[in-house]
Amino acid sequence: MIVVIHAHPYPGHSRVCGALLDAIRPLPDLEIRSLYQRYPDFDIDVEAEQQALARADCVVWLHPCYWYSAPALLKHYFDKVLERGLVHDADPCKLHGKGCLWVTTVGDDESSFASDGANRVPFARFGEPIEQTARFGGMVWEPPFVVFGAQTIPAEALADRAQALRARLEQLTAEHARRAPVGVAP
Amino acid sequence: MIVVIHAHPYPGHSRVCGALLDAIRPLPDLEIRSLYQRYPDFDIDVEAEQQALARADCVVWLHPCYWYSAPALLKHYFDKVLERGLVHDADPCKLHGKGCLWVTTVGDDESSFASDGANRVPFARFGEPIEQTARFGGMVWEPPFVVFGAQTIPAEALADRAQALRARLEQLTAEHARRAPVGVAP
Repeated sequence: MIVVIHAHPYPGHSRVCGALLDAIRPLPDLEIRSLYQRYPDFDIDVEAEQQALARADCVVWLHPCYWYSAPALLKHYFDKVLERGLVHDADPCKLHGKGCLWVTTVGDDESSFASDGANRVPFARFGEPIEQTARFGGMVWEPPFVVFGAQTIPAEALADRAQALRARLEQLTAEHARRAPVGVAP
Repeated sequence: MIVVIHAHPYPGHSRVCGALLDAIRPLPDLEIRSLYQRYPDFDIDVEAEQQALARADCVVWLHPCYWYSAPALLKHYFDKVLERGLVHDADPCKLHGKGCLWVTTVGDDESSFASDGANRVPFARFGEPIEQTARFGGMVWEPPFVVFGAQTIPAEALADRAQALRARLEQLTAEHARRAPVGVAP
């Protein structure tokens, strides 16, 4: 089971994240939880979100980059949901061994993330807080899936990226299905 | 004028940030804006916050680290306040040339931010999104002021750090007073 935590502040204006979601929505064993639709007032149902994480083999964080990181409601989700019992005060904690795939869209082209570009450093450097948030809870950090140039990406290229994400999730599902659950004899 | 944007989700339990605030509060030409007290429902007054930034020579972002970055309400502030006219669609943008000092407290000891520690990489690596947020708007990024070991720091050491922050802000005020405002003849 893959659980997708989707956070777009303006989903009606979400061309790229929207296309990604549309491509993966038909997959079996996949649940999409759109935070800004569920919690427009930032009033997160912590228990419901923790239960959703508990049933996941793999968690996807899917959002556009806002100021080089997660939109505020996804950060609020981290602050409230990734808490006691889930990543603290349990050994192993409940997220341990689950996969975590970061899927994000970036308005600028990748070339701008360089010492001579507007964004100064390689994009991967901005992912450290999110990667370490996953790793702290013992999650298995997957190579991130990033769509650059989201402001201008042509329709055909976007369709290709969306299908690539779908293939990636199918692969993750297959990998997790191969792993025997802890405590179950082969 | 220094404007301090303070974001602590639980200010009543804020021993370290509280001590830092108490040390700097008496300084002249300093305004402290505590986001979680002003906007407990995340309903930020964007215009008021933009006006506060406009009157600052130097902006301080002061918060405990939550999941290796800003607490959600400060991220929401970035998403909402650092917008059109302030950092976009104006040349130079309105933040250009203002100082920006990041003041943050970290529960763990600095030694844990290493390849053999629980936090895996040097702490500075987690600051990239916040630094680039300031730099994108043309702000002058000051060397950050970080208090490590906030969960256990002894009272005397904390008092020393608080006085060091106060001295740092006095120095920044003096530096900005020496710079002639743009467009004013010497």
